[in-house]
Amino acid sequence: MTLDETHDPALTSWVAGADGHRDFPIQNLPYGIFSIDDDRPRPCVAIGDHLLDLSAISGLLPVELHETTLNSLFALASERRIALRRKLSELLSDPGHRAALTRHLHRQDAVTLHLPAAIGDYTDFYVGIHHANNIGRQFRPDNPLLPNYKYVPIGYHGRASSIRPSGVPVVRPKGQRKPPEAETPAYGPTGRLDYELEMGVWIGRGNDLGDPIPIGEAADHVAGFCLLNDWSARDFQAWEYQPLGPFLAKNFHTTVSPWVVTPEALAPYRIAQPPRPEGDPRPLPYLWDDRDQQAGAFAIELEVHLLTEAMRAAGQAPHRLSHGPAKNMYWTVAQIVTHHASNGCNLQPGDLLGTGTISAATEDGYGSLTELSRGGAQPVRLANGEERAFLHDGDELILTASASAEGRAPIGFGACRAMVLPAR
Amino acid sequence: MTLDETHDPALTSWVAGADGHRDFPIQNLPYGIFSIDDDRPRPCVAIGDHLLDLSAISGLLPVELHETTLNSLFALASERRIALRRKLSELLSDPGHRAALTRHLHRQDAVTLHLPAAIGDYTDFYVGIHHANNIGRQFRPDNPLLPNYKYVPIGYHGRASSIRPSGVPVVRPKGQRKPPEAETPAYGPTGRLDYELEMGVWIGRGNDLGDPIPIGEAADHVAGFCLLNDWSARDFQAWEYQPLGPFLAKNFHTTVSPWVVTPEALAPYRIAQPPRPEGDPRPLPYLWDDRDQQAGAFAIELEVHLLTEAMRAAGQAPHRLSHGPAKNMYWTVAQIVTHHASNGCNLQPGDLLGTGTISAATEDGYGSLTELSRGGAQPVRLANGEERAFLHDGDELILTASASAEGRAPIGFGACRAMVLPAR
Repeated sequence: MTLDETHDPALTSWVAGADGHRDFPIQNLPYGIFSIDDDRPRPCVAIGDHLLDLSAISGLLPVELHETTLNSLFALASERRIALRRKLSELLSDPGHRAALTRHLHRQDAVTLHLPAAIGDYTDFYVGIHHANNIGRQFRPDNPLLPNYKYVPIGYHGRASSIRPSGVPVVRPKGQRKPPEAETPAYGPTGRLDYELEMGVWIGRGNDLGDPIPIGEAADHVAGFCLLNDWSARDFQAWEYQPLGPFLAKNFHTTVSPWVVTPEALAPYRIAQPPRPEGDPRPLPYLWDDRDQQAGAFAIELEVHLLTEAMRAAGQAPHRLSHGPAKNMYWTVAQIVTHHASNGCNLQPGDLLGTGTISAATEDGYGSLTELSRGGAQPVRLANGEERAFLHDGDELILTASASAEGRAPIGFGACRAMVLPAR
Repeated sequence: MTLDETHDPALTSWVAGADGHRDFPIQNLPYGIFSIDDDRPRPCVAIGDHLLDLSAISGLLPVELHETTLNSLFALASERRIALRRKLSELLSDPGHRAALTRHLHRQDAVTLHLPAAIGDYTDFYVGIHHANNIGRQFRPDNPLLPNYKYVPIGYHGRASSIRPSGVPVVRPKGQRKPPEAETPAYGPTGRLDYELEMGVWIGRGNDLGDPIPIGEAADHVAGFCLLNDWSARDFQAWEYQPLGPFLAKNFHTTVSPWVVTPEALAPYRIAQPPRPEGDPRPLPYLWDDRDQQAGAFAIELEVHLLTEAMRAAGQAPHRLSHGPAKNMYWTVAQIVTHHASNGCNLQPGDLLGTGTISAATEDGYGSLTELSRGGAQPVRLANGEERAFLHDGDELILTASASAEGRAPIGFGACRAMVLPAR
């Protein structure tokens, strides 16, 4: 979309604390699903530390928003989504609406935030090329990056049922693992619990079974973005993943941030897709679009923090494990959407795609512990003196992100966080 | 369950043609979802060539059945499912009900049969050990069966959105493939379209995220069985599957038979799980249950037929490509259910599991064309003189199955069939 008055950096909100808010100034306006006590979940939009109940002000909006998920909002044509955004921008900036709307504002920390959509299918990609190299080296020392990687946006189907919003603890999973020195595998709690820093893509308008999505139309099928932690049990993964890919190593839990940051909100932060390294093949024509190459990446900085039980007890701040730019993706979002549907596979509103782990080329931007600790061989030293090769029970992992551009206020995604509970 | 009067081989039905029916005598009573014209889909039970509309006779039944899917029926405790089966057996055997029920009978060939459930997640396993050996030899000649195979019921997540009931044609998919002699891949219609003969397992009662399903309770989480064709594009598969498993080679379409054959109906046809070959490891304790070993397999014969355009034009019968017993599974259904949930992954009512391709040890029981044609090198000669290395446009693939036991009438699954349409 072209930039409009909803992106004006000078635009301010009458909601206290929204202007200059790290994540949710009025230029962002991400959608979510919330409930109070045991009420029915309903749609909302984030503004500063608050949210506005959209089901309560439906009469003022160009779109009916009464359902318990955002699936039908995701399915809207982008013109209608943009009309809704313009209206919300007007309602939350013009102080004339303050009196009528204040009672429909709630503090985010006083409500429950749910998954934003009923997720039909979840697919995880592998577009972080530095991660693919790092992890490939651990699983296949002789052959880290396979010959298909630079032609095929590699992906696989994940588990939809075990995706949970930020805040829901993850239970340390049990499973089969066979250490290299053992003769046979055994079943028990994972000793190599890890996180993976990813972005999530919420699918908007779907395609019919049998009909591919041309790359020039792919952006129109994306309803929004989130942060995603692809929890992983590295010991299960090493033992089970051949020949059909990761399964129980991943499907015990996936955490997403609850706010859907729209393509419209991110429009000012689009940047060119970084050129491929000299010598890499050009993508096949069905994956190539000049406009996508010019604006297919995002100026987003990603961060990972760890809060251990000891830090919590001592009142210490979380330790930053890594930070790096989201542009370290070998394929654009449009390319993964088009590739996914290139065989006629039908995507549906509310489907979720993960980008795969986004690591930087340098260690300070590695997106998982197994990369930071070299497969556990070199534990990471934390600021308080603790060490981590993999995650301990009681550890809380926190992903955050911030989009920035010159002359504009940054916008964020809110946190994607969850604590590790002991195995049951 | 123990056998009861619903299994009595002497039981007959007042519905014309039901007694002695190849698939659906009164001893079977599988559930489905049907609609007439553009009516709302609703639950039914098959009897002979007919079906009985269960939503129309709800007042007579111990369970309300008004929904457009069977998910809530699947979620019932097995006692309640059994009570429903007993009631249906009584209604369809006692001629006193004929007058009241006849108007709620419909011919199956006069209605539309839908997917029986809203499928949350679909997982495909790989338990056909002869298939794993055959296909492994094609993809990894030196290393057909990987070291984990005899410890781990290997599985991966498939695509739920592209599962269709029998009868819906499959569009030949386009995708990336790189023949060994080519330097780079190209995008276009698959030249190696194949089928895979599988059984499907419908999940009944679910488990909470984080809570494994003990093997002794696994049977209680299964609501029924069907036939499943895991359509595969072998050229896409060979190029894309490493390192994360099959993706676009499989997710363009999956066909299931529309009738849910219940564990109760199959109880008389249970047999002992075949003993593992001498020297194979014993499964880990979490996958071992004596009762499951004694009755974890089924006396079911599977068949695959091919009807080509030429046969159709000439009015010829389909050509039988293969036939073999379902007991060629290295793991039982209880073992795959328990393994799937062993890390706390939550299964939900209406989830679908595929067993993986079931091949026999001998060629006449191979469950895919790539096995029958040795990866395409030795095309299969059909009865009418045609040859097939892989499937042609216009080919119709038909899976059927029959359970039999001494002193009992056989019961069947109905057909799982679909025709190949040209690429779009």
